[in-house]
Amino acid sequence: MKPFNYGIIGDSGKMGIEITNLFNEAGHKKVFSVDALNEKEEARPDLLIDFSIPDVLDRTLALGIEFSSPVILGTTGYNSYHFELIKKASAVIPIVQSYNYSIGIQMLLKCTELLKENLSDWDIEITETHHRFKKDKPSGTAIMIKEAIGKDVPISSLRLGNVPGDHTVFFGGLGEVLSIKHSATSRRTFAEGVLKSAEFLLGKAPGLYSFKDVLFKK
Amino acid sequence: MKPFNYGIIGDSGKMGIEITNLFNEAGHKKVFSVDALNEKEEARPDLLIDFSIPDVLDRTLALGIEFSSPVILGTTGYNSYHFELIKKASAVIPIVQSYNYSIGIQMLLKCTELLKENLSDWDIEITETHHRFKKDKPSGTAIMIKEAIGKDVPISSLRLGNVPGDHTVFFGGLGEVLSIKHSATSRRTFAEGVLKSAEFLLGKAPGLYSFKDVLFKK
Amino acid sequence: MKPFNYGIIGDSGKMGIEITNLFNEAGHKKVFSVDALNEKEEARPDLLIDFSIPDVLDRTLALGIEFSSPVILGTTGYNSYHFELIKKASAVIPIVQSYNYSIGIQMLLKCTELLKENLSDWDIEITETHHRFKKDKPSGTAIMIKEAIGKDVPISSLRLGNVPGDHTVFFGGLGEVLSIKHSATSRRTFAEGVLKSAEFLLGKAPGLYSFKDVLFKK
Amino acid sequence: MKPFNYGIIGDSGKMGIEITNLFNEAGHKKVFSVDALNEKEEARPDLLIDFSIPDVLDRTLALGIEFSSPVILGTTGYNSYHFELIKKASAVIPIVQSYNYSIGIQMLLKCTELLKENLSDWDIEITETHHRFKKDKPSGTAIMIKEAIGKDVPISSLRLGNVPGDHTVFFGGLGEVLSIKHSATSRRTFAEGVLKSAEFLLGKAPGLYSFKDVLFKK
Repeated sequence: MKPFNYGIIGDSGKMGIEITNLFNEAGHKKVFSVDALNEKEEARPDLLIDFSIPDVLDRTLALGIEFSSPVILGTTGYNSYHFELIKKASAVIPIVQSYNYSIGIQMLLKCTELLKENLSDWDIEITETHHRFKKDKPSGTAIMIKEAIGKDVPISSLRLGNVPGDHTVFFGGLGEVLSIKHSATSRRTFAEGVLKSAEFLLGKAPGLYSFKDVLFKK
Repeated sequence: MKPFNYGIIGDSGKMGIEITNLFNEAGHKKVFSVDALNEKEEARPDLLIDFSIPDVLDRTLALGIEFSSPVILGTTGYNSYHFELIKKASAVIPIVQSYNYSIGIQMLLKCTELLKENLSDWDIEITETHHRFKKDKPSGTAIMIKEAIGKDVPISSLRLGNVPGDHTVFFGGLGEVLSIKHSATSRRTFAEGVLKSAEFLLGKAPGLYSFKDVLFKK
Repeated sequence: MKPFNYGIIGDSGKMGIEITNLFNEAGHKKVFSVDALNEKEEARPDLLIDFSIPDVLDRTLALGIEFSSPVILGTTGYNSYHFELIKKASAVIPIVQSYNYSIGIQMLLKCTELLKENLSDWDIEITETHHRFKKDKPSGTAIMIKEAIGKDVPISSLRLGNVPGDHTVFFGGLGEVLSIKHSATSRRTFAEGVLKSAEFLLGKAPGLYSFKDVLFKK
Repeated sequence: MKPFNYGIIGDSGKMGIEITNLFNEAGHKKVFSVDALNEKEEARPDLLIDFSIPDVLDRTLALGIEFSSPVILGTTGYNSYHFELIKKASAVIPIVQSYNYSIGIQMLLKCTELLKENLSDWDIEITETHHRFKKDKPSGTAIMIKEAIGKDVPISSLRLGNVPGDHTVFFGGLGEVLSIKHSATSRRTFAEGVLKSAEFLLGKAPGLYSFKDVLFKK
């Protein structure tokens, strides 16, 4: 795909660094960056990426509208107020919002939907394991899985060392157990999902898209 | 469903005993049984079930045609010659043939098909674990999984204690691993699949059906 | 070992049946049995086994003293009052008491003790999975593991289908995770632990022994 | 501990980079480095570390003797010829040699030794999973585990995405399975083992030490 100029809100965070590395390798150019302490603008970005905190969402969306540039939102912890803001802005610019940009997690969600329909009387349990520094319990991704199941299933959260992130869904029938497990081994996989979303968004009509749309509605 | 009369070829085998227990609980009556040493016929069976050895297939199919009764085949180790016999007989009577009558394994196969289409450049590996007394390596079910993937993926076979049967398919991308695991905790689950197949077959037109048909083509 | 006569309190329970099968195969003879509704005495037992409910402990111990026969206690749910009774009786007859008669669980406990000493700054988590019918959470065995660790580590309990019982201890350091997992595949393994305890007890001096003593203090 | 000067053979390899980062953070100074194409000597090193290829072992040991500096060997693939060289050199300088510098793997080995002694009639299986780029099968660590078991147990090797390295030992009895699993989540854990070895070696008498000695013979 043609090289483009991009901007990152949350530039020095772990995901900001990972995205910068991958996008630069792919030939794209960072021309805009925002952090708690700094803001740098070399040129007008064709696309904005926000992996930061919910509080700056307002400004990110205003920048997207000002630049007429699509926006990719990877920040977690949005509440209904934030989702209202996103919806409004998506009338003007195309936006992708997701709590998880891994293709593996999207496939886990697809399998989970398939299983819950066919194994309706089986027990369901979710477990998630993350590094000891993770503050929220359960993880945003575990909540996404629970929503895909569509009923109130138990979630067990383990905090161990520096595990990047494991999620498992268990289906238990009388006589058998079926489980699907996803393990992230590096953050690069999320950066690749962001790159796929960028390619999807450029040239798209205004609207609100999920990462599922990016993967399956090409 | 209405009670019916059934017959079992391989009556004193582990699956024969499990099927007899479940079918009797469900109100059906065993009127015909065959074993290496004995054959007992009290009445004409409405349905025949064969969980024995490939060598007797010829006779099982002849009995099915003689009684005009549907046949459920759960024996493993058939070769192309046997499959030819089955195909011919299925022009006259309805037959279900499967190497695994667990609904969980069928769902694992469905998920596997979904994943191999969407994760085409990921590595795939299969592992299976069974009790130390199992003679064939890899298991028939592992072969079914490999066929569902449609390419030559490695299968690792472990033999441990008296494990009833575990099968796992791993998909490995750069940065993430997705796996689906099935564990059988008792043979009863297979007997339940046979009962479902019986209900599916009675009254069906001649033809060759898979356990997938039983579950999803109602 | 020489055949002996034994008695079971809780004779028709799942463990009572399993123990009877194994002990009879080994050439020993059941001469005494107690249940909610029945009591049968053919001869004086050399050994008493109690897998029933805490309420009958009093009588079990009185019988042991009356017959001068060693007692194996596998009932769960004892409180401090019961442990006081056991201690008193052990001045007169030899007793083995344990919440879990599997050698695998004893080995898991040994490994856990080894690891907690050497990995003192690692995170520890316990998970246990049992069938949906199990009422207590967490399992008695999970509590034994926690006591072996000697500090208040989180226990996650999953309830799935008819899983006989899985226990895992996770140790997480920065850069690595080490885990030990035990899966029970049948109750026979517990009956074998009871048989080992019987062989240990016969001829022993009065005293209170653990299953760990049975395995490691021969 | 007091800062020291160190040298690395295999300086630009993955482990060379990881070790340099950790050692520099800890206040130590790299004064000597060797690679396929370059060699740089700023000062005489107090300690030499070799994570490269077996072919250069000869020179590494000669350098250690020349500098009278202890040597840490982390290269894999040595044969009996190489081990002979190491033994000879260890008469003059102190050397630590290991195929795996993770404390978790050492603890897995300790548990494995404990289990094989107590579960002598159980089945044993080893599995190892690594990234698709790993060329040797099975891994050196899997071979270490097999040697700890002391008999010819099967090893299954899986190659998936970019998995840093998983090793599992399974013990299967009739009625239960016990397994110990180690997952590396980053290479930093190995660098930390090398730093521990460095602290152990400085000031030691000549001799050949294992990483087990480093951890348990302080």
